[in-house]
Amino acid sequence: MGSISAIEVAQTILEKGVSLNRSLIIIIFQNEEGGLFGSKAKTTGLTSKDLELISSSGLSIRDGINKIGGNVDNIQSAKLSKGDWAAYVELHIEQGGILDNENIDIGIVQGIVGIKQWDVTVTGFSNHAGTTPMDKRKDALYAAAQYVQVVHEIGKNTPGRQVATVGKIQSYPGAPNVVPGLVKTSLEIRDLDGKKINSIFQKIKTASVKIARQTQTTFKFEPTISIVPQPADRRISRYINLAVDELKLSNKYLPSGAGHDAQEMTQICPIGMIFIPSKEGISHSPTEYSSPEDITNGANVLLNTVLIIDKQL
Amino acid sequence: MGSISAIEVAQTILEKGVSLNRSLIIIIFQNEEGGLFGSKAKTTGLTSKDLELISSSGLSIRDGINKIGGNVDNIQSAKLSKGDWAAYVELHIEQGGILDNENIDIGIVQGIVGIKQWDVTVTGFSNHAGTTPMDKRKDALYAAAQYVQVVHEIGKNTPGRQVATVGKIQSYPGAPNVVPGLVKTSLEIRDLDGKKINSIFQKIKTASVKIARQTQTTFKFEPTISIVPQPADRRISRYINLAVDELKLSNKYLPSGAGHDAQEMTQICPIGMIFIPSKEGISHSPTEYSSPEDITNGANVLLNTVLIIDKQL
Repeated sequence: MGSISAIEVAQTILEKGVSLNRSLIIIIFQNEEGGLFGSKAKTTGLTSKDLELISSSGLSIRDGINKIGGNVDNIQSAKLSKGDWAAYVELHIEQGGILDNENIDIGIVQGIVGIKQWDVTVTGFSNHAGTTPMDKRKDALYAAAQYVQVVHEIGKNTPGRQVATVGKIQSYPGAPNVVPGLVKTSLEIRDLDGKKINSIFQKIKTASVKIARQTQTTFKFEPTISIVPQPADRRISRYINLAVDELKLSNKYLPSGAGHDAQEMTQICPIGMIFIPSKEGISHSPTEYSSPEDITNGANVLLNTVLIIDKQL
Repeated sequence: MGSISAIEVAQTILEKGVSLNRSLIIIIFQNEEGGLFGSKAKTTGLTSKDLELISSSGLSIRDGINKIGGNVDNIQSAKLSKGDWAAYVELHIEQGGILDNENIDIGIVQGIVGIKQWDVTVTGFSNHAGTTPMDKRKDALYAAAQYVQVVHEIGKNTPGRQVATVGKIQSYPGAPNVVPGLVKTSLEIRDLDGKKINSIFQKIKTASVKIARQTQTTFKFEPTISIVPQPADRRISRYINLAVDELKLSNKYLPSGAGHDAQEMTQICPIGMIFIPSKEGISHSPTEYSSPEDITNGANVLLNTVLIIDKQL
């Protein structure tokens, strides 16, 4: 949707004979869900490790690029340097259902959230579920259950737009008649503010220490993924806001909880992102839907933003 | 331990020249952890389905019996009829650590608990953990976590010696960055009273309905295993108590949370069970330990119980 609207913006500028101060480049990145390879090629450049990764096609990124007619030997020439571009603006559907739910036309993205993930291990003592009295158990799953609840409630009740998720859990040995001695689970925290991610983590860790004491278990948190937040450029966000106001549309400032190519592009130039509503926030699904009016609004906001940036920046 | 003590009892009766009214049979069953095949052969008889089961040796029960020199064709002749035996008494270590913990010499078993198990499925809605706000989630794991706590707490806080266990849990799709839409878990409840098992289950089900409503999820309970409780015979328990008193030992009445051959034998004759302390309740482990004093106490209680049964029953 974003790519077609961008082409429509260029087409309109051409048709109306508008003369720009700067070049307008329409860029369509390789599938961003596959890991931002396209935008990475434009910024820090792809490493040989990146190129050897096997994609879901069964081919390495290197062989895949060659197969569709690309020339991997030449890929480093795609790299930009800081300052080569004046600004980067990306139009996307909002994947959380917030705009749809609150009936707002346009989301002005404050930035792309940072992500931290941990492998979490809860250790108790595995025991016979028939003979071990309730008050003598060191049940790793009873402890993990309290942890899952705490993560959800700290994530929900702390003021702000952070999210905290336990997506993975498995108990061991994992039989209905054995008190679990071990639980392997996970933690993910996302927020626009890296310090907020750390403070949420500290709250969860403190709560886990208390749970561990009460249940005679231990918790171990091993960091796995750490992606720093990438704030949008304040001037560009203000220009998007001006564009929205010119079109008399409603707007809301919000973070992007999902990753986007824009986060890679922050390494080269100031960035901004425009969101339009997606029904119930559904994305990557055949039931994903944005109305023609919302798509038109998005294209118009992008057009006006480009024109403002061209004059002001 | 039980088998050697039983042989010691027979040896002592022989050496002391005690004359009994009835025959004394010492029976050592095939490994009871493998599924009570030995005692089942003596009571309802092994079915061809039982004999075809593959044991952990890789052989079927049929081939295993033949391999160690048994004759499966003749196995039905081992079957007893109701009334063939006057009583059955089994001596065993107590596997819950209650006697060890409370420093009590002898456990008088009130019966072998009933067991009910269910497969439990919690269904919510799987969603992107980055973009789905905390208050818009239908997180099956958040619901399951509350369920695990409820099971533990109902099991612990209801007066009595029941146990309620969630041993198994897994979330789906099971990625750190996806709100789980599905959790597969379990429930097991054991008690000496079948009605108590049912009432505990109803409490848990009622709590689950409330959790489901609050978390916008659904719970499904599918029964899998149902084993009825087998109470010990009150007269035999009283005789064991008399034997304990004669020896000036301390005792406690308690259920057996684990299964024993005695539960099969209830189909043929009245049964009783004697427990001795096992350190920390550890069993089926190289660290299982009962002191020589406790083993001697157990053998003496068994001896006296046999003598009382022989006179009284």
